Amino acid sequence: IRKGIPEAIYGEGKGAEQIVKIAQKMSESGHPILVTRVCPQKASEILKKAPFLEYNSDARLLHSPISPPNNSDKKVITVPVITAGTSDIPVAEEAAITLELNGIRAKRIFDCGVAGIHRLFDHIDVIQKAPVIIVVAGMDGVLPGLIAGIAPCPVIGVPTSIGYGANFKGVAPLLTMLNTCSQGLCVVNIDNGFGAACVAALICSRIKEFNP
Amino acid sequence: IRKGIPEAIYGEGKGAEQIVKIAQKMSESGHPILVTRVCPQKASEILKKAPFLEYNSDARLLHSPISPPNNSDKKVITVPVITAGTSDIPVAEEAAITLELNGIRAKRIFDCGVAGIHRLFDHIDVIQKAPVIIVVAGMDGVLPGLIAGIAPCPVIGVPTSIGYGANFKGVAPLLTMLNTCSQGLCVVNIDNGFGAACVAALICSRIKEFNP
Amino acid sequence: IRKGIPEAIYGEGKGAEQIVKIAQKMSESGHPILVTRVCPQKASEILKKAPFLEYNSDARLLHSPISPPNNSDKKVITVPVITAGTSDIPVAEEAAITLELNGIRAKRIFDCGVAGIHRLFDHIDVIQKAPVIIVVAGMDGVLPGLIAGIAPCPVIGVPTSIGYGANFKGVAPLLTMLNTCSQGLCVVNIDNGFGAACVAALICSRIKEFNP
Amino acid sequence: IRKGIPEAIYGEGKGAEQIVKIAQKMSESGHPILVTRVCPQKASEILKKAPFLEYNSDARLLHSPISPPNNSDKKVITVPVITAGTSDIPVAEEAAITLELNGIRAKRIFDCGVAGIHRLFDHIDVIQKAPVIIVVAGMDGVLPGLIAGIAPCPVIGVPTSIGYGANFKGVAPLLTMLNTCSQGLCVVNIDNGFGAACVAALICSRIKEFNP
Amino acid sequence: IRKGIPEAIYGEGKGAEQIVKIAQKMSESGHPILVTRVCPQKASEILKKAPFLEYNSDARLLHSPISPPNNSDKKVITVPVITAGTSDIPVAEEAAITLELNGIRAKRIFDCGVAGIHRLFDHIDVIQKAPVIIVVAGMDGVLPGLIAGIAPCPVIGVPTSIGYGANFKGVAPLLTMLNTCSQGLCVVNIDNGFGAACVAALICSRIKEFNP
Amino acid sequence: IRKGIPEAIYGEGKGAEQIVKIAQKMSESGHPILVTRVCPQKASEILKKAPFLEYNSDARLLHSPISPPNNSDKKVITVPVITAGTSDIPVAEEAAITLELNGIRAKRIFDCGVAGIHRLFDHIDVIQKAPVIIVVAGMDGVLPGLIAGIAPCPVIGVPTSIGYGANFKGVAPLLTMLNTCSQGLCVVNIDNGFGAACVAALICSRIKEFNP
Amino acid sequence: IRKGIPEAIYGEGKGAEQIVKIAQKMSESGHPILVTRVCPQKASEILKKAPFLEYNSDARLLHSPISPPNNSDKKVITVPVITAGTSDIPVAEEAAITLELNGIRAKRIFDCGVAGIHRLFDHIDVIQKAPVIIVVAGMDGVLPGLIAGIAPCPVIGVPTSIGYGANFKGVAPLLTMLNTCSQGLCVVNIDNGFGAACVAALICSRIKEFNP
Amino acid sequence: IRKGIPEAIYGEGKGAEQIVKIAQKMSESGHPILVTRVCPQKASEILKKAPFLEYNSDARLLHSPISPPNNSDKKVITVPVITAGTSDIPVAEEAAITLELNGIRAKRIFDCGVAGIHRLFDHIDVIQKAPVIIVVAGMDGVLPGLIAGIAPCPVIGVPTSIGYGANFKGVAPLLTMLNTCSQGLCVVNIDNGFGAACVAALICSRIKEFNP
Ligand SMILES: Nc1ncnc2c1ncn2[C@@H]1O[C@H](COP(=O)(O)O)[C@@H](O)[C@H]1O
Ligand SMILES: Nc1ncnc2c1ncn2[C@@H]1O[C@H](COP(=O)(O)O)[C@@H](O)[C@H]1O
Ligand SMILES: Nc1ncnc2c1ncn2[C@@H]1O[C@H](COP(=O)(O)O)[C@@H](O)[C@H]1O
Ligand SMILES: Nc1ncnc2c1ncn2[C@@H]1O[C@H](COP(=O)(O)O)[C@@H](O)[C@H]1O
Ligand SMILES: [Mg+2]
Ligand SMILES: [Mg+2]
Ligand SMILES: [Mg+2]
Ligand SMILES: [Mg+2]
Ligand SMILES: [Mg+2]
Ligand SMILES: [Mg+2]
Ligand SMILES: [Mg+2]
Ligand SMILES: [Mg+2]
Repeated sequence: IRKGIPEAIYGEGKGAEQIVKIAQKMSESGHPILVTRVCPQKASEILKKAPFLEYNSDARLLHSPISPPNNSDKKVITVPVITAGTSDIPVAEEAAITLELNGIRAKRIFDCGVAGIHRLFDHIDVIQKAPVIIVVAGMDGVLPGLIAGIAPCPVIGVPTSIGYGANFKGVAPLLTMLNTCSQGLCVVNIDNGFGAACVAALICSRIKEFNP
Repeated sequence: IRKGIPEAIYGEGKGAEQIVKIAQKMSESGHPILVTRVCPQKASEILKKAPFLEYNSDARLLHSPISPPNNSDKKVITVPVITAGTSDIPVAEEAAITLELNGIRAKRIFDCGVAGIHRLFDHIDVIQKAPVIIVVAGMDGVLPGLIAGIAPCPVIGVPTSIGYGANFKGVAPLLTMLNTCSQGLCVVNIDNGFGAACVAALICSRIKEFNP
Repeated sequence: IRKGIPEAIYGEGKGAEQIVKIAQKMSESGHPILVTRVCPQKASEILKKAPFLEYNSDARLLHSPISPPNNSDKKVITVPVITAGTSDIPVAEEAAITLELNGIRAKRIFDCGVAGIHRLFDHIDVIQKAPVIIVVAGMDGVLPGLIAGIAPCPVIGVPTSIGYGANFKGVAPLLTMLNTCSQGLCVVNIDNGFGAACVAALICSRIKEFNP
Repeated sequence: IRKGIPEAIYGEGKGAEQIVKIAQKMSESGHPILVTRVCPQKASEILKKAPFLEYNSDARLLHSPISPPNNSDKKVITVPVITAGTSDIPVAEEAAITLELNGIRAKRIFDCGVAGIHRLFDHIDVIQKAPVIIVVAGMDGVLPGLIAGIAPCPVIGVPTSIGYGANFKGVAPLLTMLNTCSQGLCVVNIDNGFGAACVAALICSRIKEFNP
Repeated sequence: IRKGIPEAIYGEGKGAEQIVKIAQKMSESGHPILVTRVCPQKASEILKKAPFLEYNSDARLLHSPISPPNNSDKKVITVPVITAGTSDIPVAEEAAITLELNGIRAKRIFDCGVAGIHRLFDHIDVIQKAPVIIVVAGMDGVLPGLIAGIAPCPVIGVPTSIGYGANFKGVAPLLTMLNTCSQGLCVVNIDNGFGAACVAALICSRIKEFNP
Repeated sequence: IRKGIPEAIYGEGKGAEQIVKIAQKMSESGHPILVTRVCPQKASEILKKAPFLEYNSDARLLHSPISPPNNSDKKVITVPVITAGTSDIPVAEEAAITLELNGIRAKRIFDCGVAGIHRLFDHIDVIQKAPVIIVVAGMDGVLPGLIAGIAPCPVIGVPTSIGYGANFKGVAPLLTMLNTCSQGLCVVNIDNGFGAACVAALICSRIKEFNP
Repeated sequence: IRKGIPEAIYGEGKGAEQIVKIAQKMSESGHPILVTRVCPQKASEILKKAPFLEYNSDARLLHSPISPPNNSDKKVITVPVITAGTSDIPVAEEAAITLELNGIRAKRIFDCGVAGIHRLFDHIDVIQKAPVIIVVAGMDGVLPGLIAGIAPCPVIGVPTSIGYGANFKGVAPLLTMLNTCSQGLCVVNIDNGFGAACVAALICSRIKEFNP
Repeated sequence: IRKGIPEAIYGEGKGAEQIVKIAQKMSESGHPILVTRVCPQKASEILKKAPFLEYNSDARLLHSPISPPNNSDKKVITVPVITAGTSDIPVAEEAAITLELNGIRAKRIFDCGVAGIHRLFDHIDVIQKAPVIIVVAGMDGVLPGLIAGIAPCPVIGVPTSIGYGANFKGVAPLLTMLNTCSQGLCVVNIDNGFGAACVAALICSRIKEFNP
């Protein structure tokens, strides 16, 4: 555990056995475990030998059980995870579960793009009070900029590879976010829900622990 | 004059003399004249020999005098030309003057991006009643999609080369517009205010003349 | 229904169940339904639970039944949908059916590129009288510009991903269309027949309803 | 003032007069003023008519006078602004002054790349205690990822256009930062020191004001 | 002289003195001389010391005097050099003069794009009888494909860097030509009139000399 | 048959039935038939209903039977088709068979790249006497430029998509060929053996038929 | 055998039979054999007919048996092959086995990126004494530059296609390495472990044999 | 001095004063000094205050005086620096002088591309005996691969930004070199003569000092 947030294993280029080995070692030392980008088939192979893990197929994550935050705990912080479309949900779930593994409550607000913008307005209160917001969007990627335009907190934009044609697998929304005129928007790699959650978790940890 | 809208001369690659010659020939045949992308210096050279032209330095256009539309004429159509920022105005002026040369009234509504979105709301009525809207935007290029999301008419997006870094001289807003989730948005080349006005003028001419 | 044209569901990133749910909700409220980019397998799953829909496998569209326009209805407008090659037909069908769902008659004129340009000349009359034309082309994408050069109405170019090598999945025809020297051509995203039809439908609705 | 941080004017596309007008209006309402990307010549023109502004030629910023933070004020937060090379300093200064205008102390640590990495180690304490760090780097852009690898706080990477050949005016360091394996790094547009400071200022404001 | 066509000197990266030296050496050996891409200023410097050369400022070429082809010589072949616009003329002149230096007659047919296509029809006879045609075009670059569609000989397309926005300095017309559906079109580098003329000259030399 | 060379059908985007229909119509009119880019499975479906066709699986071509050129016919021209590697053979075969369908003899000289350059020297005589040469190369694509450097005839370069990494599916060899310093090299689209053969066939037909 | 290092066969574009034939011919002449990029299935087909070869499935290499270097042989040189992640191992194995076929000892040091950098420090001695180092890295590709910053020998960077989103299949780490500020780093193509080993082997052969 | 080769200062982004200061400090400590990418004007400013430096305007380098290698010193190694054209000489000079500052003799062999390949053959002996070769080439960048195909030592390719059109400021030759089929070629950044010389100097130092 560097930096106070759990280390993660990048699952894409690794065999089931390799992952089991690393997970077992980490498990022995009592650390929470997170493996990203694991397809269902590889996951079920791993689970046989590493039953102390759970699999979330939406997020393609293998992870240690998540203990629900103690609701009376005043120190539990809630971070909204918002998506433009329903196709962006897997990336949003990767972010949400990474937050939860870091002891942060994730408030899921999904499908708030052009056709569902009213859903966003139902949660205007959550947006006003958030310490940081994660916004996940593909296609034209305009939602993070819109939310950054109204929220009094930093926004982390996650472009997704959802789209076709001149979308170029997420390059279009990535560029939209980088060129935003809104203040307070920063960006992580295309489809990198995990990375967005790490930034958000560090902001939350600074909010709790920082003494000027 | 093909297609009912005036022919235009692309001024960038041509010398002053060349342009004077073409303009004189067109002038003799009584056609309205439009020369695009003429820098001030070249324009003043041309004006000496072609005093029947006027120069608009904002739009970098040389053109025949524009006769103000007869206000009592019921058939005069008004097309809103909207920009996100003040830096987008030259491209918008190119569009507006091209409209006016086609006998269409241009309603200029400038600087309505993220920081000036309230200016847009002052004109919501114009947007609701327009036959077609031209929206000019650089940086992240989100404004055309937003307006297409609320207007009951087609919107023509004009990306501009205003921006820096990962803007790539207008590629970012071009991609944003091509990937829009809003219905009714189409796009022309970066900085092509003239082209947008031609599409709008043809829509207006169809509105006036079409018989199913 | 924003803007007078039916809302569409982007089918690519959604599961069959998700789509069924949304379709049922829309169906209850009496709205016409359109789901884009649905592969045959997903479509047949959906049709079992949403028998009120029809599937067009060419266009990869699920949609409400289309009532044939009343031929005596003078107000029915006809929009030509032209393709350069036969490989472009799926995208053209997406456009044509979207038009029909909006109460517009689609006139299909297919395979009119370099090797079939004579087919175009058979329909010169349709082109001269159209309120707007949709032209679908891959490879070098020159057809929309050619038609815009002769038609007295706006043309909406739809680049397709048909081609190979330096075609870059539709980027080549997209650039050709954006750089056209013809007046009156605007463009939508690669393979976006649906989007082109939305612009066309809004032009038709303005033709019918606009009062200056 | 949306969001608690001062509005900024993007100076690049605007004339001196335009900027004077906007600045005067903002000045009357008592808001702090920030104009980005103003070249020296334009700045001196503006200063004649807007003597209430100051110009920082390194950062190419025009701004209201900065009141030095009251050192006894326990609430003043310090944010490190680190650069890899000396050529990155203008972008870093843009960030630093934007921070200062927001009442935050900027700790400048410059020229800490490959050849000056020892300078970084002199400030390891500052890095350990920071609420957030801004790291500015061109060329290969590796420094932000290295710092994110050791700092227990979020890091905002600012790629710069410093470099040549396959650097592509900042694209290379932008990609390096987006692909980082370090946790806690997010990115803004190439050369966008202002944007990085806005994100940092919002993090600081959340640290001060957030109540879970 | 490799290959039977004169060697050329690429002038762009060379000083006046360097070019003079090479030209003098070639001159002594009696070879025709061609220096490409020489700006007027450098040319006049060179001409002082190499008065046996001539300068064509349109084509930016320095070259040995061209002896007009003996009109009674039946063996003189004529190659049409066609441009889409007037801005493409410099590149076309580079091709035409290179042809002439190779003893080929160049038939210049300029400005035959969308707005001047009638000029092309005046020369349909020349096109039908040509051994090979050079077609120079910027913007959307459609003209070479159109001519290849009607000419019974090979066509060499030369994309030019004329255009703006999504033209990308000639990439758009280059892609259009590479993706043509017409048979018999091949392509050289953007703005490479010299290279096109070399291919054409070799075709002409094969026509004259080839014995199966 | 436009232009004296047989029309071809682009097979990639068409169903077996579609192709059968077009082929039968062409067959009735006595024209030679060529269908490009047909995978083996589709080919065998087509052959059942169009037994007058033959399939070449290397070249992925369906075509009319090729009558071997009458060897005593002095007018039969031979065109060398050269490849850099063995992986480039399918594209070279597409070119060779297209030549043969046009009554031209194809001389196949394969695998002459860096490691097999000696094979090239065995055929130096063929190269010296050719009317035109087709050179097919992937990877770095240097072979066409080398051959153009020694051959006294035009060379048509065909980049292939063979390669990996920074090859970008043929873009690397395409650029190499476009930037050649050799005189007499022109280029067609990546993997477009058919297109190269069309240019070569037209050169051969001009050699036979041209009268200045 | 050109150049003193064994010739290799690029396996990707070749059939099993083709490879068998070439291997048999090389085997007869007593040369060591190396076939790159052979998938397991093709390998087992080949092994049936060419039992004198061995297959390494990690490296996707078919090769002659490797005789372990005589440990008492003072002239055996050791080259470190280092990877940033475990997913980079296949490319590293391609390099290592190529080295071994050239009589060089490969010292494998894997998984030394951001999360495993301590593993690197265990081998600092090997790095200090190496004649040349091969460093294989995907994602952000920073490791080769870091090692070049501390090693007193040349470093060959091999970018891999491991990554996602704005990684662009290895372009991101390729650019990082090309833009390094470290002295002594050169680069080969993405995933080209074989090429890196060839450069390293030539350096080793110069170390052994060079006489100034 | 890390790594045994002199530290260099990247001059492009630095003011004259900054450079003077750094140079004076390095000078005091007795280190050889090298400042890259210094334009003549800045150089003359610097030389006034740092007279212990010399300026090479071809290479745009400021450097400590170079002591000519003692010719009787058997340990002086000679490295060939070869260019394809004369326009590539500045980059080659940057490499040559960097070599000389490292005590290595640079053998300049310039202008050996397509039109001057005979010059290369005059030096075949030098190539056969070199410890490493630096080859500098723009346009199509084929020369490094050709030399790597015949030299029994590593070759370092330096792509230059010489070229036009689809050269993309050196991207074309960079890709050619990365995709080479020759063994033993590695690459540095476009125009990076300095970087190539550093790799070569380290190879030479290993040749002198390495003990297996
Ligand atoms: N999906 C992901 N995207 C970006 N970085 C990741 C991801 N998953 C894990 N990582 C990081 O990659 C590194 C682990 O790589 P590895 O050692 O290959 O498992 C750690 O530094 C993780 O923080
Ligand atoms: N094929 C398509 N291309 C572009 N936009 C689409 C397409 N299909 C649906 N849409 C739009 O995408 C939005 C629906 O997204 P969703 O809520 O994810 O179904 C609506 O605004 C539709 O107009
Ligand atoms: N404008 C040009 N475009 C492409 N190649 C050229 C051009 N001008 C000269 N060349 C070729 O470049 C080589 C001359 O390069 P250099 O030795 O640098 O003068 C010769 O092979 C010429 O055929
Ligand atoms: N492989 C190919 N590459 C480029 N053009 C082709 C190819 N095959 C056929 N064509 C051309 O494409 C057109 C046929 O298109 P289609 O009508 O769709 O069969 C004709 O003009 C052919 O010359
Ligand atoms: Mg939605
Ligand atoms: Mg504004
Ligand atoms: Mg067709
Ligand atoms: Mg430094
Ligand atoms: Mg014209
Ligand atoms: Mg081979
Ligand atoms: Mg690792
Ligand atoms: Mg030369």
